[in-house]
Amino acid sequence: MMERVRIVEVGPRDGLQNEKQNVPTAVKLELIERLTAAGLRDIEVTSFVSPKWVPQMADQAEVMRGLQRRPDVNYPVLTPNLKGFEAAVAEGATEVAVFAAASEGFSQKNINCSIDESIDRFVPVLDAAKRLGVKVRGYVSCVVACPYDGAIAPQQVAHVAARLHELGCYEVSLGDTIGSGTPGPVLRMLEAVAAKVPVSSLAGHYHDTYGMAAANIHASYDFGLRVFDSSVAGLGGCPYAKGATGNVATEDVVYLLHGIGADTGVDLDALVDCGAWISAQLGRDNGSRVGRAILAKRS
Amino acid sequence: MMERVRIVEVGPRDGLQNEKQNVPTAVKLELIERLTAAGLRDIEVTSFVSPKWVPQMADQAEVMRGLQRRPDVNYPVLTPNLKGFEAAVAEGATEVAVFAAASEGFSQKNINCSIDESIDRFVPVLDAAKRLGVKVRGYVSCVVACPYDGAIAPQQVAHVAARLHELGCYEVSLGDTIGSGTPGPVLRMLEAVAAKVPVSSLAGHYHDTYGMAAANIHASYDFGLRVFDSSVAGLGGCPYAKGATGNVATEDVVYLLHGIGADTGVDLDALVDCGAWISAQLGRDNGSRVGRAILAKRS
Repeated sequence: MMERVRIVEVGPRDGLQNEKQNVPTAVKLELIERLTAAGLRDIEVTSFVSPKWVPQMADQAEVMRGLQRRPDVNYPVLTPNLKGFEAAVAEGATEVAVFAAASEGFSQKNINCSIDESIDRFVPVLDAAKRLGVKVRGYVSCVVACPYDGAIAPQQVAHVAARLHELGCYEVSLGDTIGSGTPGPVLRMLEAVAAKVPVSSLAGHYHDTYGMAAANIHASYDFGLRVFDSSVAGLGGCPYAKGATGNVATEDVVYLLHGIGADTGVDLDALVDCGAWISAQLGRDNGSRVGRAILAKRS
Repeated sequence: MMERVRIVEVGPRDGLQNEKQNVPTAVKLELIERLTAAGLRDIEVTSFVSPKWVPQMADQAEVMRGLQRRPDVNYPVLTPNLKGFEAAVAEGATEVAVFAAASEGFSQKNINCSIDESIDRFVPVLDAAKRLGVKVRGYVSCVVACPYDGAIAPQQVAHVAARLHELGCYEVSLGDTIGSGTPGPVLRMLEAVAAKVPVSSLAGHYHDTYGMAAANIHASYDFGLRVFDSSVAGLGGCPYAKGATGNVATEDVVYLLHGIGADTGVDLDALVDCGAWISAQLGRDNGSRVGRAILAKRS
């Protein structure tokens, strides 16, 4: 029996949001189509944030309207507050995501409030979502370490993850935002979180800045996680740029998972093509090592 | 109790041998000094092969004579045959390495003989080494897959590893030469090998071409391996070049091992400096993700 693993593709949102250039809506929509064709079934497509803060996502309504929706594909969108949530639902969103940090320093610097205050702001979103039958996914960032506060206590991550879960998030995605985690601290963090939230409601969201994402995913898989977030071609962080924080590439995650005998439903060759295509569209290097290795082998 | 892990640094030999440019002897010697200062205690320094085949190693005698030998550091050298072995011993080598492939196709294409024939050629080397009290390490390449033969049967790897061990190699280093392994096939291979050779006599030698080396090292560590080969700055394969096969970077291995609570005796910051220095000397990009991340964080 092959274990099924769900991949949540975050390239069109988390990825493109962190690319410097603005990407045309048509390219975003084609990317989502290509990802769907490669077998991805959970694709975070945009963010309902103010274009003042995130100009890359200013076309959120156009993206939603341009989706060639399939009943077997989920199209979650990020909604930081009730206003964003209402706009997303007005555009037909059936799944949204909210985000908190496990680090006080990161929360203060990034959203200008404490962790508890940031979670309080979600309550109306989660209440409204419950009423409307909209699924909510929760992100927790800095689950291993924070650029301001350093190492984060596993208990602190568990506290934040448990609050999001209690408030109604069907899944909590644990983000090693600076990518400094190794299986040591990642497993200590997972143990603390799993004491408060069922493992089946957890996802791993690892960045590959230190090249440790594959090791962390493998260790998390062995721990029992069956959901991982990733970004095609490593969108969202160029591995060649100094200090870039890169999402782990979906190609690398799929390759790893297939290698250990798990089933993702993804066609790796089609995904590698998709990664090469979007890298060319953006005029950037392909951030997937598996993508580069397979493309080199083909040629 | 921290577990002790031995790192065998192969940059000055396996690394520089696979760089396109010729590196001055003085730079090689300074590299070895800097690696020693960073805490490495097993440094493969050169290869006693014909300069006709490997011009990068034509200065093997000068390298041996230039070593500032320390009693607590091992300086293994590669010796493909008795002639190379005798030349190495004449230059004061006290540890040598021999290499075989687990793949018939690779053996035929690379050394123009069968696996069994290649091992037969080592017998005089191992006999002479025993007589002289010289330690011999055995490499097995293509332990997961081969560019010519595809996937390699774990039993085949076990057969080759066992022969090298029986012939007197104190340690057998298992090389995923094309870097395509994941913990799935790597663990199946280790299980087969460990049935014939004690785990304490095995080393993992993984390439990072597909970005899986950290995951494979972590899985191998959990399996019981306590020796890993690596190359500072990923020397021996530029991760940006198409089709490059890169040794995993020593910085990445040390970072991973420290992260999971193992002790390597290596000062990571000094090692990162060493990787930055040799990358600058060669005018190449730094192939270590940990090196790049730490250097970016510092600046």
